[in-house]
Amino acid sequence: MQDQLDIIRRGAIEILVEQELIEKLQLKRPLRIKAGFDPTAPDLHLGHTVLLNKMRQFQDIGHEVIFLIGDFTGMIGDPTGKNATRPPLTTEEVQANARTYTEQVFKILDPVATKVVFNSQWMSELDAADLVKIAAKHTVARMLERDDFDKRYTAGQPIAIHEFLYPLIQGYDSVALESDVELGGTDQKFNLLVGRQLQQAYGQAPQIVLTMPLLEGLSGGDKMSKSLNNYIGIAEPANDMFGKLMSISDELMWRYFELVSFRSLSDIEDLREQTRAGRNPKEVKIELALEIVSRFHDTASADRACHAFNQRFAQGQLPDEIAEVTVVVGTQGLPLANVLKAAGLTASTSESHRMVGQGAVRIDGAKVENGRQLLDGGQAFVIQVGKRRIARVLLSAS
Amino acid sequence: MQDQLDIIRRGAIEILVEQELIEKLQLKRPLRIKAGFDPTAPDLHLGHTVLLNKMRQFQDIGHEVIFLIGDFTGMIGDPTGKNATRPPLTTEEVQANARTYTEQVFKILDPVATKVVFNSQWMSELDAADLVKIAAKHTVARMLERDDFDKRYTAGQPIAIHEFLYPLIQGYDSVALESDVELGGTDQKFNLLVGRQLQQAYGQAPQIVLTMPLLEGLSGGDKMSKSLNNYIGIAEPANDMFGKLMSISDELMWRYFELVSFRSLSDIEDLREQTRAGRNPKEVKIELALEIVSRFHDTASADRACHAFNQRFAQGQLPDEIAEVTVVVGTQGLPLANVLKAAGLTASTSESHRMVGQGAVRIDGAKVENGRQLLDGGQAFVIQVGKRRIARVLLSAS
Repeated sequence: MQDQLDIIRRGAIEILVEQELIEKLQLKRPLRIKAGFDPTAPDLHLGHTVLLNKMRQFQDIGHEVIFLIGDFTGMIGDPTGKNATRPPLTTEEVQANARTYTEQVFKILDPVATKVVFNSQWMSELDAADLVKIAAKHTVARMLERDDFDKRYTAGQPIAIHEFLYPLIQGYDSVALESDVELGGTDQKFNLLVGRQLQQAYGQAPQIVLTMPLLEGLSGGDKMSKSLNNYIGIAEPANDMFGKLMSISDELMWRYFELVSFRSLSDIEDLREQTRAGRNPKEVKIELALEIVSRFHDTASADRACHAFNQRFAQGQLPDEIAEVTVVVGTQGLPLANVLKAAGLTASTSESHRMVGQGAVRIDGAKVENGRQLLDGGQAFVIQVGKRRIARVLLSAS
Repeated sequence: MQDQLDIIRRGAIEILVEQELIEKLQLKRPLRIKAGFDPTAPDLHLGHTVLLNKMRQFQDIGHEVIFLIGDFTGMIGDPTGKNATRPPLTTEEVQANARTYTEQVFKILDPVATKVVFNSQWMSELDAADLVKIAAKHTVARMLERDDFDKRYTAGQPIAIHEFLYPLIQGYDSVALESDVELGGTDQKFNLLVGRQLQQAYGQAPQIVLTMPLLEGLSGGDKMSKSLNNYIGIAEPANDMFGKLMSISDELMWRYFELVSFRSLSDIEDLREQTRAGRNPKEVKIELALEIVSRFHDTASADRACHAFNQRFAQGQLPDEIAEVTVVVGTQGLPLANVLKAAGLTASTSESHRMVGQGAVRIDGAKVENGRQLLDGGQAFVIQVGKRRIARVLLSAS
């Protein structure tokens, strides 16, 4: 029991209510663990895997994981008609997205212990009167307590009434599934609690809500997201994945160990101890990168990526300690020449262009040829100018 | 056109937007006039007929009247489960109520020119996704502008989310019916405007909204309602109806002429002129009572009721001018003996009992035998004590 609890607690921000979780675990039956996913964004990145890892941990200790695809609202699209980028999905599109999803998630989840369900299965059976009855179980005031609703209402920004129905639909999924535990990011806490409350209204034992943190992107700070371009896609080539993981800061590395690595907490504590005792953090980061790349590719690919990475940096040429510099590149990006100057690697943009022209500038070990190339925010690179000037440059959009 | 407008405007509080109404009338086609009714309260009183009269007026000038029974929400009942007095209605109960309704309303409306419809006809075809789409057409902030929602929200009283859906459903009825005009009481103005706005969202020309005042009950002030017991049911016996109409004040009589009588506005102006010139208002009130009783019974019954009324008051004995006294009887009612004292007709309750015992007390001309009988609020009677003491007593609950 204590082992189970330790595994469940790992990385979690909140467990509501932990005492109820303990009672459920004492039932000695597989618990029904629900996690919901949007059917419109099937390209998973490492940030998504924080939740998937938690699901996997539940599987490892014998529980039933329900991978819920919220296709019901996806098939409605944007009912206000204002957002042309959210057309209603067809059943075929939902199925295709679901296949892309499951191909990716089964690199983490155990397919045998995973139940993939679509909420359209029960939601499309409901008529308007049924939805009225669900809506009767919650109040306007409580819904307006949700952070984003509260802010928009206070700021006089419109909230369409159907937006109040979506958390209820998500909550009703918990009723339909009779879930014991629902997992989600911290940004989902309100909606997960609606599920808890609706289950009580329908006479069920309320689910336990477990929230996981949002993984920071490569440059730290902001959460990992496609739109900030600070992500590692789980389908990316092994070399890219390895290089990106090696670019994160030594501090962020421990966060990734906790949330992304499968290594035990005591293993991770050992590694921390070793670096405190003088071990080069770069070596530890290589262990992390090898583990993650192996998971999404295989051990041989991970080893090759590691070898290629070291080759690029011409083993031994890189100092063990590299200064870290953050450069704000704005939302439009910044030309490389300006980034070099801003990072203090050159004295001026004209020196930048001269050094690029001489073939003396390398990004992640690869020679660059154009000082005008735009670098976008949300990335991090090791940049060398000549032999001695070197820095880990974090590019920030804001 | 001007004649049509005069008829339509009679008694109306607001016409939104009158210019659009004029344009619709210029189309020279029968307009679709919608008015919605609750399927749970089939006992109509004179207050309800204010709206029915307006519907009748539209029929008289050639328009199509749609008598909408809102059975969809009636068949849901109270979805919060808190109100045991609002059980879900079955289809059979709705049909039975509808029959009771139409039996009554066709005393005013022309059955041939009336279309009776049930909104379950289109609402039960909608699934949950359709309702989500309707809900997307309105905002939380606009819904919270409705008077009662605003008050409850501000006072911290709960508003269940389905309550936001009901005005939308009512509004969607206008879309389904493609109504040109919707009629309602002033208390319905917000909901009628939702219909206007939803029609626009669905690409239809918005309906014109016409609101009618709420008819005051027999003792004036409060609106006529069953719960205040200040009403005249349209199925009441002719004698009761006649007596109740004769009990209203001379001032309220003109209000009833405008809202309940079918006499033309110029006829009514003539009657006012006559009373100003010295005609006894009691004679004019008899004309009103004869008209109304004839409508819900027939001319012969009305004449008989008039005769009986005059008999009871032993023609000639009643002075032409009777003092009017309001007695507050509370929500529990008050014994007759106390009412007599409070009205100044006796000096004490013991005198009241003595006079009753002597057979000297008459209510609406009929001798009473028990001074302890409770009199409820919302009624009005002519009460005599002996020959000389007489008053029109209005009993008020608050």
